[in-house]
Amino acid sequence: MKKLLVANRGEIALRVMRSAREMGIKTVAVYSDADRNALHVRYADEAVHIGPAPSNQSYLVGSKIIEACKQTGAEAIHPGYGFLSENAAFARQVREAGLILVGPSPEAMEVMGNKLSAKAAALKYNIPMVPGTEEAITDVNDAKNRAVEVGFPILIKAAAGGGGKGMRIVDSVDEFEEQMQLAVSEATSAFGDGSVFIERYVSSPRHIEIQILGDTHGNIVHLFERDCSVQRRHQKVIEEAPSSVLTPEIRQQMGKCAVDVARSVNYTGAGTVEFIMDDDLNFYFLEMNTRLQVEHPVSELITGIDLVKEQINIARGHALTFKQEDLHIQGHAMELRVYAEDPANNFLPDIGTLQTYKTPKGPGVRVDDGFEQGMEIPIYYDPMIAKLITYGANRTEAIERMIRAIDEYQITGITTTLAFGKFVMQHPAFTSGQFDTHFVKKYFTPEVLNTENQDEAKIAAAIFGKLLSAGKQVGPANKAEVGNSDWVKNRRAF
Amino acid sequence: MKKLLVANRGEIALRVMRSAREMGIKTVAVYSDADRNALHVRYADEAVHIGPAPSNQSYLVGSKIIEACKQTGAEAIHPGYGFLSENAAFARQVREAGLILVGPSPEAMEVMGNKLSAKAAALKYNIPMVPGTEEAITDVNDAKNRAVEVGFPILIKAAAGGGGKGMRIVDSVDEFEEQMQLAVSEATSAFGDGSVFIERYVSSPRHIEIQILGDTHGNIVHLFERDCSVQRRHQKVIEEAPSSVLTPEIRQQMGKCAVDVARSVNYTGAGTVEFIMDDDLNFYFLEMNTRLQVEHPVSELITGIDLVKEQINIARGHALTFKQEDLHIQGHAMELRVYAEDPANNFLPDIGTLQTYKTPKGPGVRVDDGFEQGMEIPIYYDPMIAKLITYGANRTEAIERMIRAIDEYQITGITTTLAFGKFVMQHPAFTSGQFDTHFVKKYFTPEVLNTENQDEAKIAAAIFGKLLSAGKQVGPANKAEVGNSDWVKNRRAF
Repeated sequence: MKKLLVANRGEIALRVMRSAREMGIKTVAVYSDADRNALHVRYADEAVHIGPAPSNQSYLVGSKIIEACKQTGAEAIHPGYGFLSENAAFARQVREAGLILVGPSPEAMEVMGNKLSAKAAALKYNIPMVPGTEEAITDVNDAKNRAVEVGFPILIKAAAGGGGKGMRIVDSVDEFEEQMQLAVSEATSAFGDGSVFIERYVSSPRHIEIQILGDTHGNIVHLFERDCSVQRRHQKVIEEAPSSVLTPEIRQQMGKCAVDVARSVNYTGAGTVEFIMDDDLNFYFLEMNTRLQVEHPVSELITGIDLVKEQINIARGHALTFKQEDLHIQGHAMELRVYAEDPANNFLPDIGTLQTYKTPKGPGVRVDDGFEQGMEIPIYYDPMIAKLITYGANRTEAIERMIRAIDEYQITGITTTLAFGKFVMQHPAFTSGQFDTHFVKKYFTPEVLNTENQDEAKIAAAIFGKLLSAGKQVGPANKAEVGNSDWVKNRRAF
Repeated sequence: MKKLLVANRGEIALRVMRSAREMGIKTVAVYSDADRNALHVRYADEAVHIGPAPSNQSYLVGSKIIEACKQTGAEAIHPGYGFLSENAAFARQVREAGLILVGPSPEAMEVMGNKLSAKAAALKYNIPMVPGTEEAITDVNDAKNRAVEVGFPILIKAAAGGGGKGMRIVDSVDEFEEQMQLAVSEATSAFGDGSVFIERYVSSPRHIEIQILGDTHGNIVHLFERDCSVQRRHQKVIEEAPSSVLTPEIRQQMGKCAVDVARSVNYTGAGTVEFIMDDDLNFYFLEMNTRLQVEHPVSELITGIDLVKEQINIARGHALTFKQEDLHIQGHAMELRVYAEDPANNFLPDIGTLQTYKTPKGPGVRVDDGFEQGMEIPIYYDPMIAKLITYGANRTEAIERMIRAIDEYQITGITTTLAFGKFVMQHPAFTSGQFDTHFVKKYFTPEVLNTENQDEAKIAAAIFGKLLSAGKQVGPANKAEVGNSDWVKNRRAF
């Protein structure tokens, strides 16, 4: 493989290109009108314009991606996450065009892309499942009978769903019919498929997922877990590895299950097997994501393995160079997704220009981003500005580094979720490790951002930013003009 | 310890403050006139102005540092490296003022600060020494007799020296007298002490040093080696850990020797025991540095230990929380010192404004620096702009990341040693691990920067930088206006 096209944008496009460059592989970027000046375009060896800003006219158009490969002589495509990354039809087109997709086979994507076929595949290996229906249901009476068997509270989920759409929690049999109808109609409009399934609702769940790698020689290993239990509206906001609740025995069991799930579809490449875990550390298979995850860096940090390089090596037919017993957890990693959203105002997306944009540095801090100072956050795409990732000898150090890094991050011109992240990092439920996926709903209100949880430093930093953008001189130089020689700054402004 | 004063500037002041902040310790910066707007001043919780730019009127004036502690209520002082960090008299003043110095005792500094007393201490533990004189010599005839005993080639070194000053290699007895006289006069003018010692000259030496940590409870451990063999005029330019030549047995022997050297002076804190190694992997004690080293990050990366936090914990009387057997080498780390010097012009220091300054990011890259875009490099201090540090699963990956990171680093307005660093990373002697401290002298000439070792990308990047500073629009946006839709960029410009 001499040249790789990255069919994505933003931080993940840059992330992939960095590994490719280290491997001596040339890179091709694709870009929409909105991304003409994006960093991934500048970073690539070549760049191809593929259409207007809306994704369905550019990043989601498989034929344009394949055409860009032909035009530039790229032999392979890395899809990143989102966009075409889990699109089996695209994977087939790539194969038919004689190109290599850095990802699993279209067949594996297809099985895992549907919750029911995914469950059916996993069941062959006796993977634990949340008690519930094994087949898609559309009939309300049939569904109600099954729900009674499973026992309330139950969850109704769209078979083709994701991101919480078409999901309903039902506490008792009386509410069942109404909720079922709502779920079916939501699923129909969102996914064009109204079938749902029913399962026991785990009231205090952890979201634990296992990273796996499979090569084309039949070797499959797992790279331990990521705990993604801090979520907002079913979207992960903070991820960490290892989990603060797993025992070595359960870690091993979950790892084995994840490898088995992958084996059930002869999985090749990097993938993630997601589980839900209840209070008693029982775990149940949720789904498999057949691509690189947003949160993959935390696994890289605790294992020392570059997942993108492994993906590329697998795609070009190399066997894995390590076995399960070579892999060990070292230290603790934490990731905060930094969004252009206002946590004080119901996380309303914010757009505009990054007037100040200075990323934190120093030991144990990694920032995966796709912006620099002066750039605009385009309205067309995901509002994630950056992934702020910290690594430490243990969980406490990773958290302390995260707080330090949040304080160091300087962003003006756009409201971000950094303050929200700091709130989580300082919350006793989080620091103690005793939290579940309801953490945000349970503990977060906009008011917490204005109390003792936000120290004065944050306010000082904000004032500093405003003064800066107003062109005023701040800090010691200014003060020194007044008092000189032994001026003492009372608060840091960074 | 609630408040720590950092008696230093630049990257190391920031580095220390980051760890202190993670530990919940408030920080006090000190600054000279030239550093009014420096990042370490903005980063600290408080900052105290201590005088004019020249170090001997500010950063080197112990009484001003102690006064700044009293003024701000700081209980402890971290001296960083350079400046007052190895000044035993200052260490005594700090103790007498009732303050804590984050470093070893003045007694340990004193013994190790003089090469002869250091050797005498080490000899008690039978540490291997380069064959030579054990005592300082000033008499030429006496010295000549000793030189003949040791055998030529021999090295004449200033007893109080450092940085290559007062050092002379003598190949035969005929040249001895003249060289000896030159060495003595150089040593007298540089250090006020003309005594020298004589030792066998190792013609193809590696510089290997061992990081140690000792607490106030008598525990001393080593954190393995750093290989600092790539030097220019006796100054380290590239450091890595582990060394590519050590065997596990020799690593263990050197580690034990380093711990013994530290024990000979009841060493507390972080320190480094330096050895010279010959072709046959025989190692000889050189000296001990009684402070944090510039290159400490490579040891942090391979061990997962934050050396500054350990220093602080030792200074406040905590016992080490790990034993020797808990420490393991994980992966490989590489550091390049990026200087404001022109490698094409005999490394002449360059000064001016950092018109563009964008640091590399992504997996396995750490940048420890003290500047940001728009800042000036002051003429008063060390011309080091940054330490570019990479980490990988093995040496090859660390090197590949370093090359990628060098390519990503964007600096205009000032000439730096980045291109020189890339030359080293791509040189077969370096990549094979077969090099010694003469690497630069042997292989580097300014011409190599203009040949195939420097790929066209570097030139493209330079042009890009110049266009940017000339205010011209570059890259896809510009091209797209001309050709639109399927413009293909031919070279990355990043």
